[in-house]
Amino acid sequence: MVKGIGASSGVAIGKAFVLPAWEWELPEKMIDVADLAFEFEKLYDSVRTSRGELESIKQDISDIIGPEESHIFDAHLAILEDPIFLNEVQEIMQRQYKAAEVAVKETIDKFVGMFEILDDEYMKERAADIRDVGNRLLKHLLGNYEQLVPPVEAPFILVAKEIAPSQMVHVEPGQVLGIVTLLGGTTSHSAIMARAMGIPFVLGLEGKLGSPVQTGDTLIIDGDDGTVFVNPCSVEIAHYSKRQEKLHERKESLREIAELPSVTQDGKRIELKANISSLKELDVALRNGASGVGLLRTEFLYIDRTTLPKEEEQFEVYKAAAEKLTGKPLVIRSLDIGGDKDVNFLPLPEEENPALGYRAIRISLDRRDLFKTQLKAILRASHYGNVKLMYPMISSLEEVRKANEVLALAKKELTAAGQPFKADIEVGIMIEVPAAAAIADLLAEEVDFFSIGTNDLVQYVLAVDRMNESIAHLYDPYHPAVIRLLRQTAEAALRSGIPVSVCGELAGDPLALPIWLGLGINELSMSVQTLLPLKECLLASSENDGKETVELALACRTSDEIRELLESRRSISADAES
Amino acid sequence: MVKGIGASSGVAIGKAFVLPAWEWELPEKMIDVADLAFEFEKLYDSVRTSRGELESIKQDISDIIGPEESHIFDAHLAILEDPIFLNEVQEIMQRQYKAAEVAVKETIDKFVGMFEILDDEYMKERAADIRDVGNRLLKHLLGNYEQLVPPVEAPFILVAKEIAPSQMVHVEPGQVLGIVTLLGGTTSHSAIMARAMGIPFVLGLEGKLGSPVQTGDTLIIDGDDGTVFVNPCSVEIAHYSKRQEKLHERKESLREIAELPSVTQDGKRIELKANISSLKELDVALRNGASGVGLLRTEFLYIDRTTLPKEEEQFEVYKAAAEKLTGKPLVIRSLDIGGDKDVNFLPLPEEENPALGYRAIRISLDRRDLFKTQLKAILRASHYGNVKLMYPMISSLEEVRKANEVLALAKKELTAAGQPFKADIEVGIMIEVPAAAAIADLLAEEVDFFSIGTNDLVQYVLAVDRMNESIAHLYDPYHPAVIRLLRQTAEAALRSGIPVSVCGELAGDPLALPIWLGLGINELSMSVQTLLPLKECLLASSENDGKETVELALACRTSDEIRELLESRRSISADAES
Repeated sequence: MVKGIGASSGVAIGKAFVLPAWEWELPEKMIDVADLAFEFEKLYDSVRTSRGELESIKQDISDIIGPEESHIFDAHLAILEDPIFLNEVQEIMQRQYKAAEVAVKETIDKFVGMFEILDDEYMKERAADIRDVGNRLLKHLLGNYEQLVPPVEAPFILVAKEIAPSQMVHVEPGQVLGIVTLLGGTTSHSAIMARAMGIPFVLGLEGKLGSPVQTGDTLIIDGDDGTVFVNPCSVEIAHYSKRQEKLHERKESLREIAELPSVTQDGKRIELKANISSLKELDVALRNGASGVGLLRTEFLYIDRTTLPKEEEQFEVYKAAAEKLTGKPLVIRSLDIGGDKDVNFLPLPEEENPALGYRAIRISLDRRDLFKTQLKAILRASHYGNVKLMYPMISSLEEVRKANEVLALAKKELTAAGQPFKADIEVGIMIEVPAAAAIADLLAEEVDFFSIGTNDLVQYVLAVDRMNESIAHLYDPYHPAVIRLLRQTAEAALRSGIPVSVCGELAGDPLALPIWLGLGINELSMSVQTLLPLKECLLASSENDGKETVELALACRTSDEIRELLESRRSISADAES
Repeated sequence: MVKGIGASSGVAIGKAFVLPAWEWELPEKMIDVADLAFEFEKLYDSVRTSRGELESIKQDISDIIGPEESHIFDAHLAILEDPIFLNEVQEIMQRQYKAAEVAVKETIDKFVGMFEILDDEYMKERAADIRDVGNRLLKHLLGNYEQLVPPVEAPFILVAKEIAPSQMVHVEPGQVLGIVTLLGGTTSHSAIMARAMGIPFVLGLEGKLGSPVQTGDTLIIDGDDGTVFVNPCSVEIAHYSKRQEKLHERKESLREIAELPSVTQDGKRIELKANISSLKELDVALRNGASGVGLLRTEFLYIDRTTLPKEEEQFEVYKAAAEKLTGKPLVIRSLDIGGDKDVNFLPLPEEENPALGYRAIRISLDRRDLFKTQLKAILRASHYGNVKLMYPMISSLEEVRKANEVLALAKKELTAAGQPFKADIEVGIMIEVPAAAAIADLLAEEVDFFSIGTNDLVQYVLAVDRMNESIAHLYDPYHPAVIRLLRQTAEAALRSGIPVSVCGELAGDPLALPIWLGLGINELSMSVQTLLPLKECLLASSENDGKETVELALACRTSDEIRELLESRRSISADAES
């Protein structure tokens, strides 16, 4: 048994199919100057073939997984056509008389090495993209096409050193039970795609396997905790089969509550909405009974673009989402890049502390051109459904006012162009900066709704980066200061009569549910996977109990006391039920 | 006229003396294998001579500027004795048959290049240290000793590409009117030394001078705004002479109020204390009438150490400070490293967001060995003066309790060893994390005093890195959320009957003074240069006016409104006076 990192949840049991690694051992083949023209021809041929292949894969992936994911291949096409990349290859050929494949190999190694030296998750994934493109070129230059789809009929667990998005496109959910890789990160494109397809995925096993997995080995993988068994005994197989079955049953039984109204035992209705990053996720959200989308993260729709999406293209995506929701609310958040989110289409400055830096609304108010384009696309989509607009990272009234100025301009331009839109579109803000919570009463008078982003709020209130492992124990959403700021925010909203929702990870945590009920939060927005488990808790809980719990929590002095309280209240309500 | 960066304030007018750059053009001198032993002997000789020289400079600097600054040369000695450095030199000599000076030069270039590639202020300064040491070796290897002290009698303005701490030690305040360099940073050792000696210093002129400054050129430099005039006209000279004279007069007139009691017009006494990082600064603080030290930053005492200071050594420094203060309070803050403060003696992990990371009390509670050693040194010093202890970056009751556990253990060990200390030493905390302000009432019940660190508090409340230039406009101490948190903290302290001081930059800002008076803050601690200008304001202000101002400020909705209010109140009190 070895422990990797769970990148897509679920249990898979089956035979391994080991994907041969795309690693080329090339002899230092030198060419004669007379052959140079021929070698160049070979290079251009392989570029052309690779381009055609990438374009067809892009179309395939768009059909299978959705148009957003297909943009990954725009990045690959861009690398293929990058003059710096090709110039480097040609220079090596011309100056050192090396064969095209040798020059390509050296160029890949050089570029990948440059990216990998920057010890950064994002750069490492870009390095993987370059290697993927380079290998595609090599494949054509060397002429030995490697089979991507394994030649076995029975479903299997795919094992690879690393899996590229271009390989993921050939993965069929019915055929591939699970995926195990040595490298990769949970935020890689391949991991995102595995989650979208519901395929269990464990990665990060490099150096942990005693001997390499062989095709035909029996594997158990648990995508929740990252466990992998190689050739497990029958007891383990029986144990995990039972677990798999239970997960399946649980999934089925949860499915039954999807259509029930989301009300507490004492009749309080709470809207359960979804946080989504793709249209694909919207389908899952609706299947899971979401009463709307509380947070559409627009930046993820364009994360693989090297150029900024145009108004028309954004409009099409927002409109598609609005129409799919058939009247249910869709809260579109304006671009929230920077911090831990980089995008290709807008290079951001290197910052000492990106979380405290140039990000989200700060970028939008600095780059009003981009902001206005996005606002126009959102406004136009508002004609096709129940669309609301939300600004991220607001910390002052001035920022709200400045953003609304750009919104007014966008409306004016659309009116002049005769484009239809909802003139009185609701405009809300994220409460995620401590300053915003501290002046929530002032902000509540100038916006239509609040959505509390607990992830960032906790991070800033405690001055603890939630991604930093060496201080992970200090990232504590149940800190008394957090509870006080949540109450202050909720009270300000209620007093001004505007709705307040929660859209951080805490929204989906059953332990926190009594707090939301007690504070008068009327809406929770969470990941699509959390919707049904939380709904199950909601159906068993009561608003009155929540009110009591909040009073008791506010009297606590430490987070340990608050956690103990919430745990004990949970068992009380479980007792009361049974 | 060109604009650089002001690194040490004041105006200087005089003739330039241009320091020849230590840049060696070495021929690729190869050696015969038979000469290798001789070359090695040359190398070891130069290492020995350099070591002796560094040790004597270290002693000199300790006498002139104070023992803390002399530790810079421990870093130089450590480089000189670093086996990696010497091995690299020897390898080049042995494998490539290059002369010792060529090998040293190549090794310096390589190491400096490695450090400079990391685009980081701190690393660049370490690179400068290596170049300084390498140049010292080269000087001895090549035998042509470069004169450091210029051969002119009249005082002059020193101009150099870069100035090394080992060169600064030869700078005499009477002889050197000011310093101008092309490179360097305001946090470099040389800049720290210039400020300690009160010599105006402008740096960062690289690429800005049309033609290089020549020895004998007339210069005007303004260390406050970074202005430099080369061969100015008589009008400019007259203008700056007048400015220089005014600065001098102002300094003299401020000096007169140093001994006056620091009370407002209506009789409210406010303690004005100093934030210091060295014993040298303590002398200045006392001359400027400080009624104590509100913040001794212990990390700066050891910033150039490659090994952690032992208990005895820390004790000696703390004791010296306590004794110099002759009964006036000395608040010693436990180590506040991490964030933007790196130290050589404790390598810290690379972090995505160091300001939200492993720093200050978080490190102390993780490395209780270091923490206990420091606490014992502080406790022992408490026997020799009015010493108080302060923990930085506290965000919860648990952290206070855990820190106090280590303190109890330190006391127990000292008692067992028969060492005298003040058993009931006062223990306070910095309020600089928003969570601490939010639970100030709970914290006030468990500590003896608060000191509000406005720099970090503002940074976290607004989620704005105060060092990040692209969002500098968002770093706003007059944000309504900040004023609310300040009031909440002050009220909690007053209600519990514990003193509350302010020690961030805002403490020395005259605009903020009515707020402190209105909130009942009884102590302000600030940089030694700010003490007298702020005292002048305090003598002219009134507590009642402060109370009115705070009420009005709390009714403001934006920071613009608050700033306008404070500006208008300032002019009212100025009118009332006249």
